[in-house]
Amino acid sequence: MIVERLFHCIDEKTSPVVAGLDPVLEQIPPFLLKKAKNRLGDNQAAVVAALLTFNLSLLEVLAPLVPAVKLQKACYEVYGAPGIDCFEQTAKKAQALGLIVIDDSKRGDIGSTAGLYAQALLGKDRPADFATVNPYLGWDGIDPFLALCKKNDRGLFLLVRTSNPSAAQYQEARTPKGPLYEAIAQDLEERAQNWLGARGFSPLGAVVGATWPKEQTRLRKLMPHCLFLVPGYGAQGAKGKEVMPSFNPQGYGALINSSRGIIFAYKRPDLPSSLQGDENFAQAAAWAASEMRKDLLHNLAQAGKLPSNW
Amino acid sequence: MIVERLFHCIDEKTSPVVAGLDPVLEQIPPFLLKKAKNRLGDNQAAVVAALLTFNLSLLEVLAPLVPAVKLQKACYEVYGAPGIDCFEQTAKKAQALGLIVIDDSKRGDIGSTAGLYAQALLGKDRPADFATVNPYLGWDGIDPFLALCKKNDRGLFLLVRTSNPSAAQYQEARTPKGPLYEAIAQDLEERAQNWLGARGFSPLGAVVGATWPKEQTRLRKLMPHCLFLVPGYGAQGAKGKEVMPSFNPQGYGALINSSRGIIFAYKRPDLPSSLQGDENFAQAAAWAASEMRKDLLHNLAQAGKLPSNW
Repeated sequence: MIVERLFHCIDEKTSPVVAGLDPVLEQIPPFLLKKAKNRLGDNQAAVVAALLTFNLSLLEVLAPLVPAVKLQKACYEVYGAPGIDCFEQTAKKAQALGLIVIDDSKRGDIGSTAGLYAQALLGKDRPADFATVNPYLGWDGIDPFLALCKKNDRGLFLLVRTSNPSAAQYQEARTPKGPLYEAIAQDLEERAQNWLGARGFSPLGAVVGATWPKEQTRLRKLMPHCLFLVPGYGAQGAKGKEVMPSFNPQGYGALINSSRGIIFAYKRPDLPSSLQGDENFAQAAAWAASEMRKDLLHNLAQAGKLPSNW
Repeated sequence: MIVERLFHCIDEKTSPVVAGLDPVLEQIPPFLLKKAKNRLGDNQAAVVAALLTFNLSLLEVLAPLVPAVKLQKACYEVYGAPGIDCFEQTAKKAQALGLIVIDDSKRGDIGSTAGLYAQALLGKDRPADFATVNPYLGWDGIDPFLALCKKNDRGLFLLVRTSNPSAAQYQEARTPKGPLYEAIAQDLEERAQNWLGARGFSPLGAVVGATWPKEQTRLRKLMPHCLFLVPGYGAQGAKGKEVMPSFNPQGYGALINSSRGIIFAYKRPDLPSSLQGDENFAQAAAWAASEMRKDLLHNLAQAGKLPSNW
């Protein structure tokens, strides 16, 4: 079952860090594009090839360090069909290296179309283990994803409380169950309880922004059986301390994502001098993933939540 | 400006009908797949080729009859990169035939990623005039779409009230401005007023389900400057009478979409006998688009809203 595999990966790496493979042409080391252009000419094929090289190099060094990667679909879709190819090749390589793959595409549609999206993201031949889903259309738009997850042994993360500044704007509308995001949380927990996997967690999880510590505390209580995918660490401002509420008392149940902070670490001012230089971008990413793990483990220990077998 | 082009198309065809090009392999005439297999072998390339032939045949006969087509992205994404190619070829052909193209992909993400999605859907080289956007993440996730629309002369339809049965579940959460979908409507109208195009309408529109007549009435009042993209006619149960509230008193401002009811009309029991037979699928679609136009115009006339120059 997919949650068992996920927990196995978390324990093996003793890390809850998810690396966000969200490549952006303007941010990758320029020599990658130069090399690709020499090989393929000054065209879009060279751009996509440079992004793929960037991703594959990162995967090689990150695979021993992190349990999962999250791929932000927008970074790939922006290049049309060749971009989707790049997404699939990256995801396949990640799975081949034993990593759990999260397709972060935040789809959401009405019933029959939701079924097609579920197939598009989590079909048997698709290289993804989890997908993110937008709940605005209600459960007849979410259930088709859930059905396919059960059938194909996949999981999903429903957007409950996003990390962006305007998250509160509509997500805090009132319902009889509390603010909207809490109502969604309760409806999700209800389904999660009916489909439990390893260590009391369901493959039905929630996206909960690192930038909202108080909301994390409340949501962890409301969704004891749901994995949290927590974006917003690093570049968006949150640190280890802010994401502690997303972990359960045993130090499990949260996957903390960082994208730019890891994959573009070669540009970080706090990078050790021994790792400086564009050509060391992958080693810089490995350093950043390790630093992030240290920060999280330090805070888990402080909070008395460090998993006993780590 | 894109709304001017849209109104020109509506007046030229004297029709507010949008044909939804949402091909599904199991529903297209089987001979199309057979032919494609003979040419390309029993593989996925044949499947996508059959869908493309289906789309292009429909476009030839529908172009003189409807102002716009809406492409449901899920139907294409389910085939990965070749599916995206099929989407782009279909959309390009539609634009070449003078049709307005709506990319119905319901994206929604945080600020920086929303900018990438905007680029992916409505970038200068992309064959789409409008895209649908999910508002759950709030305006810092919507504004990047709006900015790109202004720059590239495109438009968007924000999901306000969707057509599916569980739409009310989260969309009716309470806010100080009324139910959530009305709050979103008011925030959208505020932006629309600041960016007006032809006939007092903005390129910032709303998705409003045909299945909710009362809500349409209220939303038309709340959003006098917003175009409505109205799904749910036909296969989802709504008829001409139900969508009248989406039009303004002059009979403008609403685009009524039908997908299955038009493109799979060759299977409809009410199809005239002269059009029966799988090979007549495109003519059947033309018939269905004309019948739908008649139904809408009849109801517009009944309601005293038929545009005076039609």
